Amino acid sequence: MTQISPNQILGVLGGGQLGRMLIQSAINYNQDIHILDPDPNAPCKDIAQHFQVGSLKDFDTVYSFGKNCDVITVEIEAVNTDALQKLADEGKKVFPQPHILKLIQDKREQKQFYQQHGIPTADFILTENKADVISKKSFLPSVNKLGKEGYDGRGVQILRTEADLEQAFDAPGLLEKLIDFDKEIAVTVARNENGELIAYPAVECAFHPTANLVEFLFAPAEISPEVEAKAQEIAKAVILKLDMVGILAVEMFVTKSGDVLVNEIAPRPHNSGHHTIEANFTSQFEQHLRSVMNWPLGNPELRCPAAMINLLGEDGFSGPAIVEGKEEAMAEKGVYIHLYGKKLTKPFRKMGHVTILDENVESLKAKANRIKELIKIKSIS
Amino acid sequence: MTQISPNQILGVLGGGQLGRMLIQSAINYNQDIHILDPDPNAPCKDIAQHFQVGSLKDFDTVYSFGKNCDVITVEIEAVNTDALQKLADEGKKVFPQPHILKLIQDKREQKQFYQQHGIPTADFILTENKADVISKKSFLPSVNKLGKEGYDGRGVQILRTEADLEQAFDAPGLLEKLIDFDKEIAVTVARNENGELIAYPAVECAFHPTANLVEFLFAPAEISPEVEAKAQEIAKAVILKLDMVGILAVEMFVTKSGDVLVNEIAPRPHNSGHHTIEANFTSQFEQHLRSVMNWPLGNPELRCPAAMINLLGEDGFSGPAIVEGKEEAMAEKGVYIHLYGKKLTKPFRKMGHVTILDENVESLKAKANRIKELIKIKSIS
Repeated sequence: MTQISPNQILGVLGGGQLGRMLIQSAINYNQDIHILDPDPNAPCKDIAQHFQVGSLKDFDTVYSFGKNCDVITVEIEAVNTDALQKLADEGKKVFPQPHILKLIQDKREQKQFYQQHGIPTADFILTENKADVISKKSFLPSVNKLGKEGYDGRGVQILRTEADLEQAFDAPGLLEKLIDFDKEIAVTVARNENGELIAYPAVECAFHPTANLVEFLFAPAEISPEVEAKAQEIAKAVILKLDMVGILAVEMFVTKSGDVLVNEIAPRPHNSGHHTIEANFTSQFEQHLRSVMNWPLGNPELRCPAAMINLLGEDGFSGPAIVEGKEEAMAEKGVYIHLYGKKLTKPFRKMGHVTILDENVESLKAKANRIKELIKIKSIS
Repeated sequence: MTQISPNQILGVLGGGQLGRMLIQSAINYNQDIHILDPDPNAPCKDIAQHFQVGSLKDFDTVYSFGKNCDVITVEIEAVNTDALQKLADEGKKVFPQPHILKLIQDKREQKQFYQQHGIPTADFILTENKADVISKKSFLPSVNKLGKEGYDGRGVQILRTEADLEQAFDAPGLLEKLIDFDKEIAVTVARNENGELIAYPAVECAFHPTANLVEFLFAPAEISPEVEAKAQEIAKAVILKLDMVGILAVEMFVTKSGDVLVNEIAPRPHNSGHHTIEANFTSQFEQHLRSVMNWPLGNPELRCPAAMINLLGEDGFSGPAIVEGKEEAMAEKGVYIHLYGKKLTKPFRKMGHVTILDENVESLKAKANRIKELIKIKSIS
């Protein structure tokens, strides 16, 4: 006989779309969720058992929020890790563990971690400021990444020629060899306190040419069984070397020679796993819940080939959002619209996503392209 | 170009598990939902945009609640239909329409409706009181149904012999010929204002021997294509003859000679459609939303064979609920637990349900039986 106490409170730092979809999952388990977010209109506001407005970076705010919870997790990495560490020291369950969030907050430390633990990743050198980057022109073409505060494409730039060096970040960062990759893929892994570990099948990401956000995602990735096995093995190695509890998205490059290199990781539900809600036996949001609550992990297998499209605010529109083409899209079989409850749109803001299911991969791709052209997020004014 | 106004408010009379699962669906569409329920701890309380405590049967309460909404629907039939009619007369969208709810509230009228419209149903006679039932002994064996206030098995009794007549209801009701049926099946249909009409594949229901609640449900029903076609045709005929907008569950008997007879109908999401959340392309909850909001209807096809088990409060236990065996069940592939957020259990109270997916029908049945034995809702004290 096993029982699960229904009275444990799960606190989540961040009340955006990831928290929102986590709550949609948690409702099935009577799992109460408390949310902390600086935005009084954050997507979670109406559906959390308790919604608190406050800074995620302020020690006292995070600490006092966490004191009222039993388990604390995040849906964003930019949080006060000192407060989380104090909560963990005082016996609260904090997953992912604060030291992991700290590592993720600094891309320089992250890269060194891979290096130290034999995780394959693109060659890199650390840089201290703009002058330092300029002096490293022999390392071109490369990707210049800010050490801290990068998110969703911000803090990342491609430096191909010496002329590009003028745009280099003037802060501690790193230069990474530009990888002439064949594909970008992602594998989500999850691990609970009992040590259970699962890996989702790899997905393939197609990025928006300018916004550096995932534009299309396809599951399964069209890769060989060898590359799939390698990617799963690497993703598992990362979560194990981190000794992490929770869910971890591992974004990887597949090079033209078939090597698999870790690009970035996110210790939370991630854009590359949204399709799992309809396409896999267990969604990444439920898996996150299971992992941090130390429940048995769920089966990660794919039920049906899927595509995922981010619904980004159209360039040139800001203000109260309207959704064009929604009805036409809804009329199609296997099309799942998820809007994030954001009232205001702005260029490239993540306003929602659409998952598309189709047993036939060719018609899946055609449908994904059609839906992408159909749904547009604009504004009234 | 089509747009959907995100500002229409959907009011729901009733805030139980059906409203709760409707809200889980509505979150994906930024659809705000207001709930009216007499129970301050109803399952919807924490997740509705607005939750109002009040009687569903009081004219003024229902009318003033509805005045603040654009579209009004129900998750239970026992509501004040006069208030709904006034709201409809004043231009509010009320689906299902009030006259349909009124018809459903009276099983006598319901049966006469079938008779008048050529919908096949078991033979019946109307009865006014207990003495009247006793005088109809030539109609035995039969089912005695109260005209009003029956719900979830209450208000229904089987009278096999003359001795049973002593238990007959002493109120207006009806006697229905006891059908020596082969199977009980259900078909859910949905229709929107534009006149779109869809039908879900038939499911097969196995009832609890004493509580008269669905114990197991299997999808698809194991019936011939002829019976399937007949059942779908009848269910469509019912919603069309009612001229109803919304979702309608049609429960039917399949007789040993292959006839299909309507037993009962429910103009709302229904227990016989819970599996659609994971097993079908469009869940009954999303379909309900689509139908009452006049959005395009969703594809009703089955993605995978499924079983559904109601989690009823164990007999002999009342008080704060605990869930036994949840972790073991969660560890199995394709097992989806839905708890309804009810703090207190009592014998046979609907506390949740479990959906089980398996491509193989034999192992599906075995797994359903195993899960049924595993999960028990008991109480602490």
